[in-house]
Amino acid sequence: MNRKMIAYILGRVLLVGAALMLPSVVVGVIYREQAALSFVLPIVLLVAAGLPMSCRKPADTTIFARDGFFIVASVWVLLSLAGALPFYLCGGFESFWDCLFEIVSGFTTTGASILDDPEALPRCILFWRSFSHWVGGMGVLVFVLAIMPLSDDRSLHIMKAEVPGPIVGKLVPRTRDTAMILYGVYTALTVVLVVLLLLGGMPLFDSVCHAFGAAGTGGFSIKTAGIAFYDSAYIEVVLSVFMLLFGVNFNLYFLLLVGRLKEFIKSEELWWYIVIVLVATATITLNINGIYGDPAISARHAFFQVSSIITTTGYATEDFARHWPQYAQHLLVLLMILGACAGSTGGGLKISRFILLVKASVMEIRKLLHPRAVGVTRLDGGPVDARTISGVRTYFSIYVLIICVSTLLLSFDDFDFATNITAELACFNNIGPGLGLVGPMDNYSLYSDASKMLLALNMLLGRLEIYPVLVLLSPGVWRKNVL
Amino acid sequence: MNRKMIAYILGRVLLVGAALMLPSVVVGVIYREQAALSFVLPIVLLVAAGLPMSCRKPADTTIFARDGFFIVASVWVLLSLAGALPFYLCGGFESFWDCLFEIVSGFTTTGASILDDPEALPRCILFWRSFSHWVGGMGVLVFVLAIMPLSDDRSLHIMKAEVPGPIVGKLVPRTRDTAMILYGVYTALTVVLVVLLLLGGMPLFDSVCHAFGAAGTGGFSIKTAGIAFYDSAYIEVVLSVFMLLFGVNFNLYFLLLVGRLKEFIKSEELWWYIVIVLVATATITLNINGIYGDPAISARHAFFQVSSIITTTGYATEDFARHWPQYAQHLLVLLMILGACAGSTGGGLKISRFILLVKASVMEIRKLLHPRAVGVTRLDGGPVDARTISGVRTYFSIYVLIICVSTLLLSFDDFDFATNITAELACFNNIGPGLGLVGPMDNYSLYSDASKMLLALNMLLGRLEIYPVLVLLSPGVWRKNVL
Repeated sequence: MNRKMIAYILGRVLLVGAALMLPSVVVGVIYREQAALSFVLPIVLLVAAGLPMSCRKPADTTIFARDGFFIVASVWVLLSLAGALPFYLCGGFESFWDCLFEIVSGFTTTGASILDDPEALPRCILFWRSFSHWVGGMGVLVFVLAIMPLSDDRSLHIMKAEVPGPIVGKLVPRTRDTAMILYGVYTALTVVLVVLLLLGGMPLFDSVCHAFGAAGTGGFSIKTAGIAFYDSAYIEVVLSVFMLLFGVNFNLYFLLLVGRLKEFIKSEELWWYIVIVLVATATITLNINGIYGDPAISARHAFFQVSSIITTTGYATEDFARHWPQYAQHLLVLLMILGACAGSTGGGLKISRFILLVKASVMEIRKLLHPRAVGVTRLDGGPVDARTISGVRTYFSIYVLIICVSTLLLSFDDFDFATNITAELACFNNIGPGLGLVGPMDNYSLYSDASKMLLALNMLLGRLEIYPVLVLLSPGVWRKNVL
Repeated sequence: MNRKMIAYILGRVLLVGAALMLPSVVVGVIYREQAALSFVLPIVLLVAAGLPMSCRKPADTTIFARDGFFIVASVWVLLSLAGALPFYLCGGFESFWDCLFEIVSGFTTTGASILDDPEALPRCILFWRSFSHWVGGMGVLVFVLAIMPLSDDRSLHIMKAEVPGPIVGKLVPRTRDTAMILYGVYTALTVVLVVLLLLGGMPLFDSVCHAFGAAGTGGFSIKTAGIAFYDSAYIEVVLSVFMLLFGVNFNLYFLLLVGRLKEFIKSEELWWYIVIVLVATATITLNINGIYGDPAISARHAFFQVSSIITTTGYATEDFARHWPQYAQHLLVLLMILGACAGSTGGGLKISRFILLVKASVMEIRKLLHPRAVGVTRLDGGPVDARTISGVRTYFSIYVLIICVSTLLLSFDDFDFATNITAELACFNNIGPGLGLVGPMDNYSLYSDASKMLLALNMLLGRLEIYPVLVLLSPGVWRKNVL
């Protein structure tokens, strides 16, 4: 591994981290909050560490896939540690572990909280909490890539580790340009959402924070009652639609922008995504109509919750874990696993992985029945190579294994099975709310510190799609002759 | 497909099915029970259907893998329908669906029951219920193979569909001899178990029935309180050990018999099995010791329940779903998924599949970090070919998919998530008891008829390792020009 280059990149990211805290300071100054001072120490620390590391660019800038994974995982851990400091210093949290849980939940766009009452916090802290979703959403690294003057082949290694989904395509030849385009779409959609929320009567501060949460598919609300606080069908529908938009593969927006409509329409993942959302919304509407009586209200709640869960955002308007019938609850759990589209800001297994797993299985069964049949798995009209299929299956095996082991470890806190498995699914898939004791109107404060850290690790594993974190945890990487 | 040959084989199996009911009739005669008459109609029907189908052996005896899958699945369905009749005719069950659920649970060695009080049934019916475990255990087909004069290559296709596990090895050149050896070991172990239970003071009838349940890794008890009825440490330890023995790959017993000790010791699956049982027993002992106070009693209960669940038997002495702490419950759920060794009478995913999934994943991660590394997955000292790995991964994908879809469908009965997912795991993996409302001291009578049939289908899918049932359900097979 190229230690000098890794240190150089990490140093630059720490500086970016310091810059990312400045908007929160500005918010604190505007609202004249003392809590704005909580950001001073973290900013000083980040600059003090980042400057010497990044002052001189090394001669050898070569980095490989493993370095990329290492960098990405380190960045998330370092920025999470620094990002937890303002929470800790402002005094609104019970322990540093709680702060770390909250900020990891923010950066990973999970939205699981340990706060009983977020409204008690100063606005600059709430802003930082929601802003972490927005930063995490597109990936701190894509961010950094757009700023950092690195040659293209190298940054693709970082991007590969960062951008969610099984297949990484380069939209345009230069990685930096790709990042800029994705980031531009992301910002534009966020701004439009803020404006639409304002038009619905939501205050500016609330609109910005909730737009951050929707864009990153995070789900932190600044209100204790969540989106239900505003009790507005307009706001709920706007948020539902935008959550879904942020769950679409961002490459498709690029195709739209340059007028490659044919390729856009050929995306199987998009069609599955649309069909799944429609079917889930329709069946849940029927299922919950007995509670609300009015099909329009049922459909509104069903659409909001389906959008929120499949995009792994986790905003809530209703306490589905307590009041909805079991079919709705069960289906939401399945949507948690499924997740959004690859290449979006959403988490979960990703719909494209699900499609590939199903198609490859159908192919294998066909081969079993017709031994002489020659089969190729196809996606978006083209064949998928065996390496990709094998990669998806490996991912799936490790994915299930992590869920099993983590759920078992959570059991030491002696909560029931449904609570633990949905807590694990909600954190690992970066959603937020689960069922049982961690439903949408509850929070994660009941768990022990050890369980909170396990869940935070799961958020990182889920957000970074497992491999980078495994690299960071593998003993071989830390041997002196390797690093 | 060779329709004539399929009919011929099915006809012979139906005759065997009739013969299998005779011991129950004998039991009924011995105890002078009127219920013995319930077997007359099914026997007549089986003979009437089986005789004409099997009277003339077709000239062309060629059958292929697909025919094999078709035959196996059909046999299980036909024998289940016939086997449910005595239950229905004796009058102790509420509906034919309940009878079908119970006999499928028997043949598939699941042991899930809809009976509140089995002790209310006549002995000949209880015998048939337990005997179905024993018959199912080794597979009706292996049974039939040992009797049927088919040439070897063809029967291997049936055996491949029948014997659980990812790799089918031929112990000896002739399939019929293989079946005979496996069957001999099975019978011998059962007889030894009966004798040991008798020595522990269990009555003969009870010993035989419970030995059937242990041998088939089924789990039907003839007592409402299950094995707890006898309240004997000796009986529990004997059953624990024998359940574990029936969970071992039967090929290993063959290796032992012919003195190929080196190969026996080289079995990785056996070692993992032993280690998993020891670790699970030890940690559960610690976990439940707060309840029992005495480490010896805790260890006894932990060992029994671990053996019962990992071998997918499902006998119970304690109500772990209500009284045990969460770690013990969670670990038992994981053991449900894991299951016993391949080539045993147990169900579940099978330990060898789990080993291969883990090893293949580790290999892929290594390749990711060291792109030039050449890796081969090895098992029992030899390399595993890519087809086997791919097959295991396909199996795993479909396995998880079936669990997800079935759990969702169960939700229509509006029971809670923990109940539904463990009911699904317990039936699909052929165990019996789950958590929540389907714990070891509860039963499945709460579910609707539709859910019962779904669970019964899951038992078949699990017992036959999915593919044969999929073949039976695939529309292509039923087209006129194919069949």
